[in-house]
Amino acid sequence: MTDAINERERTALGRHPERGRDDFETIAAILDAGLVCHMGVPGDGAPVVIPTIYGRIDHDLFVHGSAVARWLRTAAESVPICVTVTIVDGIVLARSAFNHSMNYRSVVIFGEASRVDDPDEKLRALEAVSEQIVPGRWQDARKPTEQELKTTLVLRLPIAEASAKVRSGPPKDFDFDMDSGIWAGVIPIQSVRGEAIPDPALDGRIEMPDYAKIRAFG
Amino acid sequence: MTDAINERERTALGRHPERGRDDFETIAAILDAGLVCHMGVPGDGAPVVIPTIYGRIDHDLFVHGSAVARWLRTAAESVPICVTVTIVDGIVLARSAFNHSMNYRSVVIFGEASRVDDPDEKLRALEAVSEQIVPGRWQDARKPTEQELKTTLVLRLPIAEASAKVRSGPPKDFDFDMDSGIWAGVIPIQSVRGEAIPDPALDGRIEMPDYAKIRAFG
Repeated sequence: MTDAINERERTALGRHPERGRDDFETIAAILDAGLVCHMGVPGDGAPVVIPTIYGRIDHDLFVHGSAVARWLRTAAESVPICVTVTIVDGIVLARSAFNHSMNYRSVVIFGEASRVDDPDEKLRALEAVSEQIVPGRWQDARKPTEQELKTTLVLRLPIAEASAKVRSGPPKDFDFDMDSGIWAGVIPIQSVRGEAIPDPALDGRIEMPDYAKIRAFG
Repeated sequence: MTDAINERERTALGRHPERGRDDFETIAAILDAGLVCHMGVPGDGAPVVIPTIYGRIDHDLFVHGSAVARWLRTAAESVPICVTVTIVDGIVLARSAFNHSMNYRSVVIFGEASRVDDPDEKLRALEAVSEQIVPGRWQDARKPTEQELKTTLVLRLPIAEASAKVRSGPPKDFDFDMDSGIWAGVIPIQSVRGEAIPDPALDGRIEMPDYAKIRAFG
């Protein structure tokens, strides 16, 4: 699978090459653990960075949105875009301010997105996005109508030019800081789901499905 | 304070104008609650979207990194950049797949960053970044040496052309979906800090400081 990853100049690692991973399994695992991506689209002068949810099917990433959303329409025009997924795992408190760091897993994908127009493929992509966020929900939800599908723009971005970066473990201090008497360690961070809040308008006899109950992310 | 926000075309809201906020207090509160920003910098063809930590002092956002980091050096060249902070608060399960949504708070800032060269100002900016992540840590950590400061690039981005988007509350379904018998509601999401893990190399007699103990983010 790793042959799909085309490591070009801009995904090459500058500092901390030890944090770099370019195998598809690592990239896919990080993507599958994430919740939101940040998509950079060329804008009017500056790039525009938009948070959005996503889904993965094999070597493709899918995002969706309103067919009138400007950023999405721009991204659909085969312009070069960048999608970044970041999962923060911890705060690394070193003895020196200089060596403080974060534990994280991130993926950067470069490429050109294309519109998904086939209705069946569109549905599969939307299902993937839904399942990424709440596995099991798609089956229960009322499925999109033809009209709803028409007003939804779905984009596919090949996970081809992609790379991952991972930092984990304890702080790395300089030798001369080790006896400073300063506390050092890692504060873990996790994105956690709380107890679901039923819609106030919900018929109280409708039972909460299992997929809405507490589960940790990441 | 709201006069500082210069709402131009690209921060104007397309869909869901009800989610838009452009007052500085809202923008500052979201920035202060966040942990990581995603910075979009014009790259070789495509924008590059990089996750990084940040700090705020009044109407300026500060980011830092190695003086040899390519993306940071590009951003320092007064090119137009975009910084986005996103806090996910929940997953909104509507009765229809179409009306599923996320509860979130996000800020988008456009502008040009400039290098902070004055050593005192640089230290204040680094302190702001540190305090953003772990309030109280800066006082304890060994402060940067002159040499460490030299190898650290600090950028200031004015929080001038900025806007916020906020979605909260229950799902909004179409009237004709209300009696579908499908469960609907919100799954809250929170970024939570776990129990700190002392550096294995730490002298066991050094007590864990209060700021390393459990606290919720966001």
